[in-house]
Amino acid sequence: MIADKMVSFVKNGSAIRAMFEEGKRLASLYGAENVYDFSLGNPNVPAPAEVETAIKEILEEEDSTYVHGYMSNSGYEDVRKVIAQSLNKRFGTAFTENNIIMTVGAAGGLNVILKTLLNPGDEVLTFAPYFGEYRAYVGNYDGVLVVVSPNTKDFQPNLAEFEEKITKNTKAVIVNTPNNPTGVVYSEDTIKRLAAILEKKQQEFGTDIYLISDEPYRELVYDGVEVPYLTKYYNNTIVGYSFSKSLSLPGERIGYLVIPNEVADFEDVLAAANVATRILGFVNAPSLQQRVVAKCIDAKCNVAAYNRNRELLYNSLVSYGYECIKPEGAFYLFVKSPTADEKIFCEAAKKHNILIVGGSSFACPGYVRIAYCVGYDTIVKALPGFEALIKEFQ
Amino acid sequence: MIADKMVSFVKNGSAIRAMFEEGKRLASLYGAENVYDFSLGNPNVPAPAEVETAIKEILEEEDSTYVHGYMSNSGYEDVRKVIAQSLNKRFGTAFTENNIIMTVGAAGGLNVILKTLLNPGDEVLTFAPYFGEYRAYVGNYDGVLVVVSPNTKDFQPNLAEFEEKITKNTKAVIVNTPNNPTGVVYSEDTIKRLAAILEKKQQEFGTDIYLISDEPYRELVYDGVEVPYLTKYYNNTIVGYSFSKSLSLPGERIGYLVIPNEVADFEDVLAAANVATRILGFVNAPSLQQRVVAKCIDAKCNVAAYNRNRELLYNSLVSYGYECIKPEGAFYLFVKSPTADEKIFCEAAKKHNILIVGGSSFACPGYVRIAYCVGYDTIVKALPGFEALIKEFQ
Repeated sequence: MIADKMVSFVKNGSAIRAMFEEGKRLASLYGAENVYDFSLGNPNVPAPAEVETAIKEILEEEDSTYVHGYMSNSGYEDVRKVIAQSLNKRFGTAFTENNIIMTVGAAGGLNVILKTLLNPGDEVLTFAPYFGEYRAYVGNYDGVLVVVSPNTKDFQPNLAEFEEKITKNTKAVIVNTPNNPTGVVYSEDTIKRLAAILEKKQQEFGTDIYLISDEPYRELVYDGVEVPYLTKYYNNTIVGYSFSKSLSLPGERIGYLVIPNEVADFEDVLAAANVATRILGFVNAPSLQQRVVAKCIDAKCNVAAYNRNRELLYNSLVSYGYECIKPEGAFYLFVKSPTADEKIFCEAAKKHNILIVGGSSFACPGYVRIAYCVGYDTIVKALPGFEALIKEFQ
Repeated sequence: MIADKMVSFVKNGSAIRAMFEEGKRLASLYGAENVYDFSLGNPNVPAPAEVETAIKEILEEEDSTYVHGYMSNSGYEDVRKVIAQSLNKRFGTAFTENNIIMTVGAAGGLNVILKTLLNPGDEVLTFAPYFGEYRAYVGNYDGVLVVVSPNTKDFQPNLAEFEEKITKNTKAVIVNTPNNPTGVVYSEDTIKRLAAILEKKQQEFGTDIYLISDEPYRELVYDGVEVPYLTKYYNNTIVGYSFSKSLSLPGERIGYLVIPNEVADFEDVLAAANVATRILGFVNAPSLQQRVVAKCIDAKCNVAAYNRNRELLYNSLVSYGYECIKPEGAFYLFVKSPTADEKIFCEAAKKHNILIVGGSSFACPGYVRIAYCVGYDTIVKALPGFEALIKEFQ
């Protein structure tokens, strides 16, 4: 008696979430310290100390009915102003509070903007491998997700195929850089070429194509790499941000959308996104956490810890014979499965109490995602398992 | 270029939210103390002291990555257990944590359950006057909201018309008691008759009809009135609860769904609601607030303050000649407009800096909703305006 659309979801579930639940099950059997759960992008680094300080200050200084009360659906004006000013300082943009809508994380923000934009049948392009939830988000509004096939050489976007797949029905493109699951960062050159293709296709079809930049991993980059701010390269860009990883607050569901003035039909898009926030049942982003992120706008999580994990895991796996490009951002390794069907590999890994997610969840079979947002010790203790594992397939 | 479905929303907006924004505008012009904003159900009573204590304790005692981290999409197991046990103690039910899904407020919960249940064209019945957002929520999943016309004598549900309007396409019924906007509480007798009609119609059509009880106002009742717990009267009942009013946390977006074992296709409904929580972009209810409500499960907001407001406002308005039934719950008066077109009345009220919402927003024109979740002084100061106002129409 459930909705037809939900039947296959219930049947297939989320492999990532299933692995997370499996991890909890194994932990109860063998002890959490003996289960090496690399399945979920759940930061192991604590929130920076500023978060706790901010919460306590807010409770001391601000009125309960204000801190926990309703505000405009788009969020507290002062919070949105702090965010706009921070972006302007960092990226040389010229946003105001009117360009910011606070959201229930990046997932909430993506749903809000897709609800805002999509008519049934509208096409949304994205590049494989991609965060599998995009398919569900687009499907929520009866859009059609069109996937550009992966470029497994370096996991940069396949722009030739991208250009071919843009049609008059293309309403939006979702990019995710630093990327989940590959950790790849799109270079400025890539962004410029992508923007040029979009400009050309807008002209050709007389349409507006919105570029949606899903950026929960913006702050997690290594080796001094720069992540271009996409609104500067293409007018029809909308940014979805989350503090889940940058402040280690994934459970709090706090993020924002940036809708620049330059976006086509700006006023309507902004107004509709506001309404979508309300009618999708978010109503507003959680109030206390809005006030927290404004106070912690310059706080940084311990990226060095993730980098240390990255170096250990990448170097070790490569030394064991695994094939993998070295990620420049996020906290994932995307490793080639030593056997063609990566599901067999994931099952074999489980026997070593190692939990990883198959690339099929990201439309890129033959690979696995290893989330290294775990304790350094977990990696150290899991390494013998990884080493033994690849030998089973040699 | 926005979605067709969003165009009318942008054009018409929410009268309640527009009034809220108007209130902020007037407050900046005349000073907040000279604007009498009765537009929004935004509690003026602070959260009980237990909330602040709980937040501080949680920050002291629990690990940051746990408090702010991901958990199962349905919420922390221990939190759900506390809620189930509290319901069992209060209402003699037999729920476990498996019957509870934590949600982003009641609005989030309603969207989750409607996404779970509705196929396009499915009918959802509700009783006018009703919270106008129901139309949007049902529309999100291409359902059809069927409205039973208001019984303006006592605002109890019109059960004869209800029975007539149930068809083979009726998938769900939404009830809201204590009611927004009338403050009416459905009696046990009403609930029994409503349940009997549903049982009969399920038999007649060979269908399952889910009764969705939207209960954000459950704890706000006066004169010792009892609010029946609907799962005890009808097997296919799903409850949507929110702590927005009971703990004065509306901005925090924290609530839950109760999906009893007795519900038709229980396992599928539960699994699909879990998935819906994830794919609609909620992912999970805000983590810190989940832990807070578990610690504050027996805390009570200052209902006496609302009662004092109710008595003053109701008695005064009636003494001025307004027509209104005395509410037994929630924090609204639903007052007959002294002129047939209540929009004229609302505009006239604005000239006295009184902000109220027209009944048309609740599918009940000719009435206005006055939210008395405001300071007692606000009511005292607004009374001369109300008295002058009715004279303008006599």
